[in-house]
Order: sequence, then structure tokens, then C-alpha cells
Amino acid sequence: MTAATEAKKRVLIIGAGAIGSFYGAALQAGGADVAVVCRSELEVVREQGYEIDSDSLGKRCFRPSQTLREVSDYQGGPPDYLVVCVKVVDGTDRVALMGNAVGPDTVIVLIENGIEIEAEIAQAFSRNELISALAFVQVSRIAPGKVKHFAFGGLSFGNYPSGLSDRARQLGKLLERGGIACTLTEDVITARWKKCVWNAVFNPISVLGGVLDTGHILHAEGGEAFVRRAMEEVAAVAAATGHPLSDSLIGKLLDGTRDAPLYKTSMALDFENGRPMEVEAILGNAVRAGRRENVDIPVLESLYALMKMVQLKSGKH
Amino acid sequence: MTAATEAKKRVLIIGAGAIGSFYGAALQAGGADVAVVCRSELEVVREQGYEIDSDSLGKRCFRPSQTLREVSDYQGGPPDYLVVCVKVVDGTDRVALMGNAVGPDTVIVLIENGIEIEAEIAQAFSRNELISALAFVQVSRIAPGKVKHFAFGGLSFGNYPSGLSDRARQLGKLLERGGIACTLTEDVITARWKKCVWNAVFNPISVLGGVLDTGHILHAEGGEAFVRRAMEEVAAVAAATGHPLSDSLIGKLLDGTRDAPLYKTSMALDFENGRPMEVEAILGNAVRAGRRENVDIPVLESLYALMKMVQLKSGKH
Repeated sequence: MTAATEAKKRVLIIGAGAIGSFYGAALQAGGADVAVVCRSELEVVREQGYEIDSDSLGKRCFRPSQTLREVSDYQGGPPDYLVVCVKVVDGTDRVALMGNAVGPDTVIVLIENGIEIEAEIAQAFSRNELISALAFVQVSRIAPGKVKHFAFGGLSFGNYPSGLSDRARQLGKLLERGGIACTLTEDVITARWKKCVWNAVFNPISVLGGVLDTGHILHAEGGEAFVRRAMEEVAAVAAATGHPLSDSLIGKLLDGTRDAPLYKTSMALDFENGRPMEVEAILGNAVRAGRRENVDIPVLESLYALMKMVQLKSGKH
Repeated sequence: MTAATEAKKRVLIIGAGAIGSFYGAALQAGGADVAVVCRSELEVVREQGYEIDSDSLGKRCFRPSQTLREVSDYQGGPPDYLVVCVKVVDGTDRVALMGNAVGPDTVIVLIENGIEIEAEIAQAFSRNELISALAFVQVSRIAPGKVKHFAFGGLSFGNYPSGLSDRARQLGKLLERGGIACTLTEDVITARWKKCVWNAVFNPISVLGGVLDTGHILHAEGGEAFVRRAMEEVAAVAAATGHPLSDSLIGKLLDGTRDAPLYKTSMALDFENGRPMEVEAILGNAVRAGRRENVDIPVLESLYALMKMVQLKSGKH
């Protein structure tokens, strides 16, 4: 073995859908040995790998070093990085999915939506380093093994609950070599709350308004004022949990959304396609944090109660 | 002419759909001369009249004395009672629809949903007596000229803005002779707010929750608490406008809804069938009253903003 191969970082990705395969391809391009666990399209990926079509990064073929049905099939000892990209929804036991692959030196990396979604993992694997990451990317799976990258792509991350380790910086270097802009932060919880200000508001509204894109939400009569009030409630919850956000954040988010092309949220896409929605991870956890901290959040409570009805009606929890 | 025919009250109904024909039939059964203006099913009604099928009142055939396309076709001079049953929606100019039929002694009777819907009419016909009426009835048009009466049937009314005239009492006698239970009130605005507590809450929620019936709304996680909070906001607006409601009202409404058979609101039915919804009359006017009186109504504001989005998306205002 040469020094080069010895140094090659071993990455295992759980939940290699659009997001997982997009960042997996980047990590491989950056020099890592990347394996995936994927269930629904296992055969296609084993035969052909993933084809990732991106305007900014070009067309990438990503052939994982191992394509596995189960974490326990992973060969060669525990990975250096276990990257978890599964959706945080009821009925998905993330700890059980990860269990076999976490060695004593494995760093766990969560690339997932939502707020306060790390504690469960931190508790189950209390001796492992945990990195919490937020993806700012528009990617979609358009066919088995085929992923289209539409826009953005950046990843923001840091250690949970705070700090920035050498191994987090190493991960950043791998990703950057693979073309991903990384924003490293020592306070990832605040970064999550910032994203939550947008996510916990636009996602449920886009479903409740009748599967609306962001432009229609802001253009409806009273829409922008309503969005702003809901965002202010999220910011108040964040502040109450000890993570105050900048006063200018909401204005910037609204400006950015107004100026961006029409965009359909992940929750609207999930709803439209009959898939489970991340209501609890994105909105429910924000509401529970608000209740815990005694913040008055009538708009978020309204959105949450209505989303529970939509889920009850559609049978998708 | 005998004294009996001289005394026969002349009633003209505008908007003779399910509600209008149901009460028209009752007024005819009670001894009035009842004419209707109806547009969409004119030919059928001219030939066959209305067939109204009711479990409690039996099968009634209601042949109007005149079946008209326009108010201006009404023969025999202005009516004693002009009964307006058109939906209060954008694009329907009620004053223009009524104009020709209002004589100096005509009493205008509004059997319509919503809150603060009378002022426009009172202003346009300031010399006429105005009766404001609330229908507590489940009726549906099931085919041209055919109406099915499912449940209830009572009418609550009084003069607008307050009081109870002899001619209002006369109307009550006609209706009661036709089998309709009437609740006469000297304070019809308070009666409207009471109904609004239910209507302004269950109607929009039933649409936003995914066309839900009342039972699913109350059974969803957090549903009943959410409904209660929204109802409390309506009650606070009513009180601020000088119409305080009884403290026990909300509990009674919730109990009644919980115990009643599953019920789909009029707004959910309108939405489902692509018809205009009475969002402004029922919810928008309550929200505007709240803003005017500086009542904090975040839940109602949320419901209203979301309904504007649903209307924008569906193109039905």
C-alpha cells in the first residue's frame, strides 16, 4: 500500500437519493472512496452507477466503490465518515439504519433538513464526532440512477452542538476539491435556525396554499406580510433557545425569494408525489421548541395544526 | 277580489338555488304568492317547478307564481318582501340585481352567509326596511329543479341593524305556517357573530386541511385546540365591535360539532366543485373587523392569507 491509498478517506453514504448521490459524487471527485447504501434502485446503480447532470459541474458519472442493500454489507471496516442523507420522517429509524456502520473513529455527518434533529443521533452515538450539515441545493432524481442538479449546491456545516474539528475541515477540503462550496461554521445550530426561518414557513404554506410555488405565495394578497409574520415567530423561537438571528435576515430571505426563479418547495413536491413530508423535522420541532420556551407562535401553530390535518387526510405522515 | 286574496303577501326571491327554493316553498306553503328569479335552470323550473325532497317536511312541489330571468320582468308591482339568497362573492353586484324590484314599501330580506354583509344594502336602499336572516339548514341542489333537504331548516332573523318590526313578525308567521322554525331576534348582528364563530373557522379549515369534514378537523392532532383558538379570536372581534358573546358559546359549538354527523362545509363543497367561495363575506369581513378594532387575530389572519393563496391558485375568487 502506498501512502496515497492509505490516506484515502472512506465514506459510506446512507440514503443515496438525489442529495446523497450528488454529494457522494463530489466526495469521490474530491478523492474519497465512496460507498452507498441504496435500496430502491440498487440494481441500476450497481450496473451503471449514478449519472448526475449539472449545468455548473457538468455531467458526472458516479460509480460507488460499494453499492449495498444494507449497512451491514459494508466491507473493509468502519468508514471514516458515515454520511446520513435519509429524510427525517416518522417511521424511519435513523439510529437503526446506521448502527452497524459506526466504528469508534467514525465521524457521523447528517445532511438533512430540519431543526433539533441531531440530539437523537448524538445520544445514540455519544462517543462519536457528529457533523451537522445543511444542503443549499436543488437536485431531483429524474429516473433510477439519474439525478438532475438545477441550482446552488453549497453545504454549510460544523460540529454538533458547536465547534469545528480537524476532521470537519478535512471533509470540507474533500468536498471543495469535488466542486462544492462549503461554509464552515462553529455554530451550526444557529445556521440550522437560519435555514429553518425559510423552511418552516415556505414549506407548509406551499402545501396549504394548494401546492404553490414561492412566487405565488409572495404575490397572493397579504402573502408577504403573512410569510414575514411566520418568519418572525421562527426567529423568536431561535432567540429563545439561545440562538438569536440577525435582524436583517428575514428581509434578506424575502428579497432573495422574490428575486429567485419560481421554486417549488420539497414539501410541496413530496405532497404532490404522495411521499411522506418532513413536517415534524422542519415545522413540528420548531413548534415544540417554541412551546418549550414559552414563545407565542400562533401562526406556526396554525400552520402545524393544518399540516396535521393534511397528513391525516392524505394518510402520509 | 276577496279579503283573503287582497291580503296575500307577494314575495320575490332572487337567487333561487337550494336555499332560496327551500324557503320559497315554505313561504308558498305558508300562504304567500312567491315568484323567483333564477337563471341557470329557468326552463326546467318554468315547466316543472321545484321538487324539494325533505325527510322532515316530505316531498314538496314548489311552482312559483312567476319564474323570471330578470328582476325587471316581475309583474304586479313591487313585492312586499324581496328575499335575497344570492351568494356574497366578488363579482356579484347584489344592489344591481335587486334594483328594479325594490318599491317604497318593499321589505328586503337577506338570507345569506357572512358578517357585516348588510351595510352595502342598507346604504343603497336606505328608506327600506331591512331584515337580516341566517339559515341553519343543510340543503343541496341535486339536479336542475331538484333540491334535497338533509337536516335542520330553521331561520334566525331580525331587523338590521336591530329591532323586530311587525313585518318581520309577519314573515315569521308565514314561514312557520310553512313548517320553518323561526328564531326572531332584536339583535341580529350578535346572532350573525355567533354563527360566524363557527363559520369563519370551520369553513376555511375544511378547505385548507384538504377538503376535510368537521369530524376529521376535530380528530386531527391538535385540531380541536386550534379550532378553539380561532373561535376565540372571532369572539374577541365580536366583543370589540360591541357584540359580546356568551362565554359558553364556543364549548357548545364544539360539543355540537363533535356530536353531529360528519359534515362538509359549504366552502369545502364550493371548493371541491370549482365554485366561488364566500371567503370575503365569512372570513375576510371578520378579519377586517378585527383589524379595524385592533384585535390581535393571528390565527384568523393565517387562515385568511392561506385562503387568498388557494383562491389565487384555483382562480376562483
